[in-house]
Amino acid sequence: MLKFSKPEIANYDEYREKAEAAYRLLRSGTGKGSEFLGWLDPDAEQNRIEDGLIETAAEFSANSDITVVIGIGGSYLGAKAVIELLVPDCTRVVFAGTSLSGSALERLIKRLDGKEFSLVVVSKSGTTTEPALAFRVLERELIRRYGEKAAAGRVAVVTNPEGGAMRQIAEAGSYRIFTIPDNIGGRYSVLSSAGLLPVAIAGIDVLALRGGSSGFAGSDNISQALDYAAARQALYAAGKKFEALSLFEPNFQYFGEWFKQLFGESEGKDGKGILPVSLNLTADLHSMGQYMQDGERTMFETFLWADSGAALTVPESAHNFDGFNHLAGRRFDGINRIALDATKAAHTEGGVPALEINAGIPDAAGVGELLQFFMLTCGVSGYISGVNPFDQPGVEAYKRNMKKLM
Amino acid sequence: MLKFSKPEIANYDEYREKAEAAYRLLRSGTGKGSEFLGWLDPDAEQNRIEDGLIETAAEFSANSDITVVIGIGGSYLGAKAVIELLVPDCTRVVFAGTSLSGSALERLIKRLDGKEFSLVVVSKSGTTTEPALAFRVLERELIRRYGEKAAAGRVAVVTNPEGGAMRQIAEAGSYRIFTIPDNIGGRYSVLSSAGLLPVAIAGIDVLALRGGSSGFAGSDNISQALDYAAARQALYAAGKKFEALSLFEPNFQYFGEWFKQLFGESEGKDGKGILPVSLNLTADLHSMGQYMQDGERTMFETFLWADSGAALTVPESAHNFDGFNHLAGRRFDGINRIALDATKAAHTEGGVPALEINAGIPDAAGVGELLQFFMLTCGVSGYISGVNPFDQPGVEAYKRNMKKLM
Repeated sequence: MLKFSKPEIANYDEYREKAEAAYRLLRSGTGKGSEFLGWLDPDAEQNRIEDGLIETAAEFSANSDITVVIGIGGSYLGAKAVIELLVPDCTRVVFAGTSLSGSALERLIKRLDGKEFSLVVVSKSGTTTEPALAFRVLERELIRRYGEKAAAGRVAVVTNPEGGAMRQIAEAGSYRIFTIPDNIGGRYSVLSSAGLLPVAIAGIDVLALRGGSSGFAGSDNISQALDYAAARQALYAAGKKFEALSLFEPNFQYFGEWFKQLFGESEGKDGKGILPVSLNLTADLHSMGQYMQDGERTMFETFLWADSGAALTVPESAHNFDGFNHLAGRRFDGINRIALDATKAAHTEGGVPALEINAGIPDAAGVGELLQFFMLTCGVSGYISGVNPFDQPGVEAYKRNMKKLM
Repeated sequence: MLKFSKPEIANYDEYREKAEAAYRLLRSGTGKGSEFLGWLDPDAEQNRIEDGLIETAAEFSANSDITVVIGIGGSYLGAKAVIELLVPDCTRVVFAGTSLSGSALERLIKRLDGKEFSLVVVSKSGTTTEPALAFRVLERELIRRYGEKAAAGRVAVVTNPEGGAMRQIAEAGSYRIFTIPDNIGGRYSVLSSAGLLPVAIAGIDVLALRGGSSGFAGSDNISQALDYAAARQALYAAGKKFEALSLFEPNFQYFGEWFKQLFGESEGKDGKGILPVSLNLTADLHSMGQYMQDGERTMFETFLWADSGAALTVPESAHNFDGFNHLAGRRFDGINRIALDATKAAHTEGGVPALEINAGIPDAAGVGELLQFFMLTCGVSGYISGVNPFDQPGVEAYKRNMKKLM
């Protein structure tokens, strides 16, 4: 069960009321960008797990050493984050189409050498440069390897329900097709087929994952998401310009990347927005920790705690030169939690307000809950600040320039 | 040959003069933290490659499938960044001791199962919690596997020239010892044995790497580092509070992490400092790109370009549903460069000043040059802003709290 906590914050009550109003607006379906609220009700009929998804995942898992998932932005970060969280060091699913690097693609093709592989393409339009070009290269490689007919059975496409280049390509190649509902934008799509298909191929129980998001409404998570949204915006109004999401397990790194996309792209517009930053602790205490402690006093910090459940304890040392024998026999996870408390105390003393989300033990259901919690917080927080948290006009500027220069 | 360029910046000339003065102060050895300037002269006698380093690296490479390098912060990020740049997807060297996660250590031990392995510990004091505890676990595992005597030949320690817990441990265990000079701080230590030993084990030509830093003084790199430092501080004075280092090859990701540590820990103090952020493009154009384009207008962007030299070109498509046949036959690297130009144009239009560092083709010598360039820029930039770029008092606050709570 997820638990949010926060310190005293000036004007918090005012922002908590704004959060209530923002949530009502979200639920009313009349706010900005309300054509993209498909993610809000995990239990809605449109959000059921698509027919054939679990079977396709099982088939690719069985016949492939590696499934290459091609996608960028919202068609990539959610799945990557969930896989790292639940299957750390997963080698069965790798990602491509996340850059225009020729050398990265060359390395990937070398890595596929001698391995059985399949492709999943996640692209609403099919005309986004990075995934489209990566798909051209990898589709050619797949056909070269298996021949056109057998290759067709090794491609699954996740795209628009109707129309678009990706669907044309899929139909021409007789590839399997899954869909991202039109009313779900990329960065809110992790619990649609865009996220679920890659995640299922990695061996994750998607029913349990969806169960976590679906149980959401029955808990006090909605109220806690409003608390978090209110705290964020009250702090922003008080001059706290960036939020550091501080993570304590290495396999949360891409959850941090997903978080940055979700909030950065939802709130960073109209000349405002909290800048999202993620810290991988305790590593970053030995790097960015200095800035957090003593740099400009314009940030707040959100600690995300999860107990990994690892049993490993600290060994006794015969000589104890390092002086740590007082920790012998103690669980690393317990010491890691102390590091969180120590950091929180040090940064609070240093003038950095600290929020905390305790995610408990993040199994598949817990991760589903966590994803839904952050998405709801983001929608509410965006509405409090008056922006449309569901569009991304700024990303189009780069795409236009790109087309012009090419 | 590295090339720095910048747009018109208000008050730049004033800051360029300050950069000259800061550089003179740095060279005079009388500025703040001047006891930590050992990295400034790569050709100084103290900075020659230590006896036995190349031989030890060759030995570990030959007798181990995996060498685990234990270190955190400055004892980790430099080596990790260089290995990713020059040997992407390297599996021969893995890092540990970068967190207090018990599950990460458990996964590592599982990964070592059935593999030959060695240990390198990089720690000045030997009493930093994360690497000290990881070393206890991994030393036990090594001895369990090889027995005490054979295990001794599989450990190398990089530590203080004299005294300290790590040296005591090494002497008691008859481990090989290399040193980090006292006058080089962690985040400036990548070209000392702290970085060179792991890098050499990964198969990188450390003579070439050092050659790049050592050729530095004979080029116009010093002048360009002063240009960069002046541009940064002039922009900061004009209200640009954070710097995004924008990278275009996936294997530059940890160079971005090294950059954040170098600048964040050097400049983030006394209630000021430019917040360093790194963007992995083009991926992050589909996430943080929105914030860059339309969020608060308080950032500048430094584009770091490198040509990977990859020959891969875009395949022709028979149906051309995605509309990209006009790119058929063109090199990915050329398209990636267009993405940089498109991003630069879009962000500049959006009010984000753009600096650029063109690193050419980053071979070992080029990487050495790049590291020295950033370190010099950082020292000069810190002196312009009036801080001591060589201490980290804020990191100590966390360490104190940690000891108290334990």
